[in-house]
Amino acid sequence: MNKIDNAASMLNPQGGMSGAPALRGVRVIDLTQFEAGTSVTLALAWLGADVIKVENPVGGEQGRGASTDKPGMDSYYFMLLNANKRSVTVNLKNERGRKILLDLVRNADVFIENFAPGAIERLGLSYEVLSAINPRLVYAQIKGFASDSPFASYLAFDMIGQATGGIMSITGEAGGRPLKPGPTLGDTGTGLHCTIGILAALYQRESTGRGQRIQVAMQDAMINFCRIAYAAQSLHGKACERNGNQVVLGTTAPSEVYPCKGGGPNDYCYIYSSRASNMHWHRLLEVIGREEFKTDPRFATPQGRADHVKDIDAIVAPWVALHSKEDVMRMLGDAGVPAGAVFDTMELSEDANLREREIFVTVKHHQRGDFVMPGWPVKMSDSHVKIEASPALGEHSAEVYREVLGLGEQDIAELRAEGAI
Amino acid sequence: MNKIDNAASMLNPQGGMSGAPALRGVRVIDLTQFEAGTSVTLALAWLGADVIKVENPVGGEQGRGASTDKPGMDSYYFMLLNANKRSVTVNLKNERGRKILLDLVRNADVFIENFAPGAIERLGLSYEVLSAINPRLVYAQIKGFASDSPFASYLAFDMIGQATGGIMSITGEAGGRPLKPGPTLGDTGTGLHCTIGILAALYQRESTGRGQRIQVAMQDAMINFCRIAYAAQSLHGKACERNGNQVVLGTTAPSEVYPCKGGGPNDYCYIYSSRASNMHWHRLLEVIGREEFKTDPRFATPQGRADHVKDIDAIVAPWVALHSKEDVMRMLGDAGVPAGAVFDTMELSEDANLREREIFVTVKHHQRGDFVMPGWPVKMSDSHVKIEASPALGEHSAEVYREVLGLGEQDIAELRAEGAI
Repeated sequence: MNKIDNAASMLNPQGGMSGAPALRGVRVIDLTQFEAGTSVTLALAWLGADVIKVENPVGGEQGRGASTDKPGMDSYYFMLLNANKRSVTVNLKNERGRKILLDLVRNADVFIENFAPGAIERLGLSYEVLSAINPRLVYAQIKGFASDSPFASYLAFDMIGQATGGIMSITGEAGGRPLKPGPTLGDTGTGLHCTIGILAALYQRESTGRGQRIQVAMQDAMINFCRIAYAAQSLHGKACERNGNQVVLGTTAPSEVYPCKGGGPNDYCYIYSSRASNMHWHRLLEVIGREEFKTDPRFATPQGRADHVKDIDAIVAPWVALHSKEDVMRMLGDAGVPAGAVFDTMELSEDANLREREIFVTVKHHQRGDFVMPGWPVKMSDSHVKIEASPALGEHSAEVYREVLGLGEQDIAELRAEGAI
Repeated sequence: MNKIDNAASMLNPQGGMSGAPALRGVRVIDLTQFEAGTSVTLALAWLGADVIKVENPVGGEQGRGASTDKPGMDSYYFMLLNANKRSVTVNLKNERGRKILLDLVRNADVFIENFAPGAIERLGLSYEVLSAINPRLVYAQIKGFASDSPFASYLAFDMIGQATGGIMSITGEAGGRPLKPGPTLGDTGTGLHCTIGILAALYQRESTGRGQRIQVAMQDAMINFCRIAYAAQSLHGKACERNGNQVVLGTTAPSEVYPCKGGGPNDYCYIYSSRASNMHWHRLLEVIGREEFKTDPRFATPQGRADHVKDIDAIVAPWVALHSKEDVMRMLGDAGVPAGAVFDTMELSEDANLREREIFVTVKHHQRGDFVMPGWPVKMSDSHVKIEASPALGEHSAEVYREVLGLGEQDIAELRAEGAI
């Protein structure tokens, strides 16, 4: 227990030596909606930036209401993606509202949006306009397709990025139909790329004094996740094919999920033997008591095992079936064989160690009370931010307009009265 | 053509206004292998950092040889992950070799490794040792499991991260077995998180003057990709289930890949209607000439459509089957319906627009000649790096040791003779 406590306090020193997280002092004007863009500003908030989420006074950002189970109550979806942000309302179609937004931008370091193609220009908030009023601004955009792609004007959501970026063509059973991975690679995966661009631009600004424009398209970012499929294409001279749970290169075995005792939908353990040597394979044979196969010529190389994958499965599967997934993982892990139980979302979110390490945190939401959600997985010894629940719509309007723009109570009341905020 | 050229030159001004890419001047000592770590230093190189890849004099990094089709020739896998890096050789088990490494670290900004658990400490290159000799160092590590996880000592590769981080539990057909997505989320997905930590630490160092330690575990990073599954878990009160191509929230339809004319393995188009309104659904009905369903009470809400997904499929599928995937995407995209053809790796890598925009680039490799590979998908108006092929083993040893450590030809010859480099 003490050991874990000490390690955790070393990793997350609640402010570290400096007391300030990495992006303390960085102000982000956040016009994002749904997930691709909101995942970026969530990461920036968790690195210590002051993220000001700008929302429509009527109903707020679309993700608040979409997919909620109770009308008028923020969706879990929204709560997962908007922690540690401040919410202000602005009516961007009102002239004074638009002026408020421009004033915020004058006092900001980063601006980001992921509206449908052309929308931000129609709002009069293009890169050209905003960089002219604040040359230090880092202006970031996420779209489905690049502005100079033939598909530039097309709408896109997560799955459209996954389809057009090659992800679905390499996911699924051999000979089966294309399949969408469950995780939202098109959204959060593109968002991670955009976050990298923004951070690099902030670093570059330290020497140039200037901001710049960052553009990331979902289709393009998806290709970066599929790189190894291009190694497979080069190896085999044809498009990379779906191959179930085998690695796309097809150059080793075992590389499969095997059913374990219990028979539940996720009672499986993935077992892998690296293509770099026979070491893991030999260790596996020792654990399962089948050392006679160490000298079998069929299995003498990684490629040889891949060529005899059914024989491999026939040796490994019967042993795995005798044990729970946790036991299989433990016995193989202890012996130095790469093995991973297929954990489901409930098992993970209730795991004591993941809770202790803030991979899952409990926040207090103004409508729903205690809420368990994934936290930030990047552990930095000198930057830590306590995770706080997503804000109510406009919760920080008065605070932000006073603090950032110097407005008084009277100004704010007037702006509200005329529907500008 | 001119339009595309102009757009491309605006996005990638070959050095931009400043002439220097974002991370010019940042030196990275790169002890990474395979993909999780190499994907980080690849991103840093493409942002302009000077990445010095430190390899074993005998055979180099394991990824060079693993999965190659021709012994002695660098694998495509390695070539995809090590572009724009400089390669030096160091024998870390030789005393003078280890001293060379420490001298490099004294002159570096970032150090990164993804060896098996405990290996870097056994080499005498722990965070404590290196940060003591260079307090400005950002020291980054990627492991399968956190150092304070019960699985801390276990080996992990991409698929182990995907299994234990929940990815496989939400990927696959409804009622089917857990499936590994084709893309290497455990590797490149964790690498993106680590890259964010490194960049944030470099930015923080501008104000603190100090480096810090960054640790990312594959299992933890995978959870961040599955966030929406935790919204589904909260909605339904049970672990998120696999659901084929439907969105995990299960709150709208269509949200499916439909077979197109042609019948090939990837002749499919994904069609989606957002859960935020009925707008896409109505537009879809107009395009396919079935406007009578606009007023059908079964389909009056996103949730209603999700509850009648088979009826939706029966309306949409026959129309899609009449057209090629490109035509389906074009007709629906033009009408404002989210739709994405399932492109395969060959279609993408041969796409003229993706080539023009440097999403795929051709590099000249010292052994294999012209090689097409994915480029960097983040477009920055003021930072651009020309993509160059991965280096030969030790190609830059003399250059780096002269330039960074001030060694002469005689020194280098001696070090080689005694097997230190």
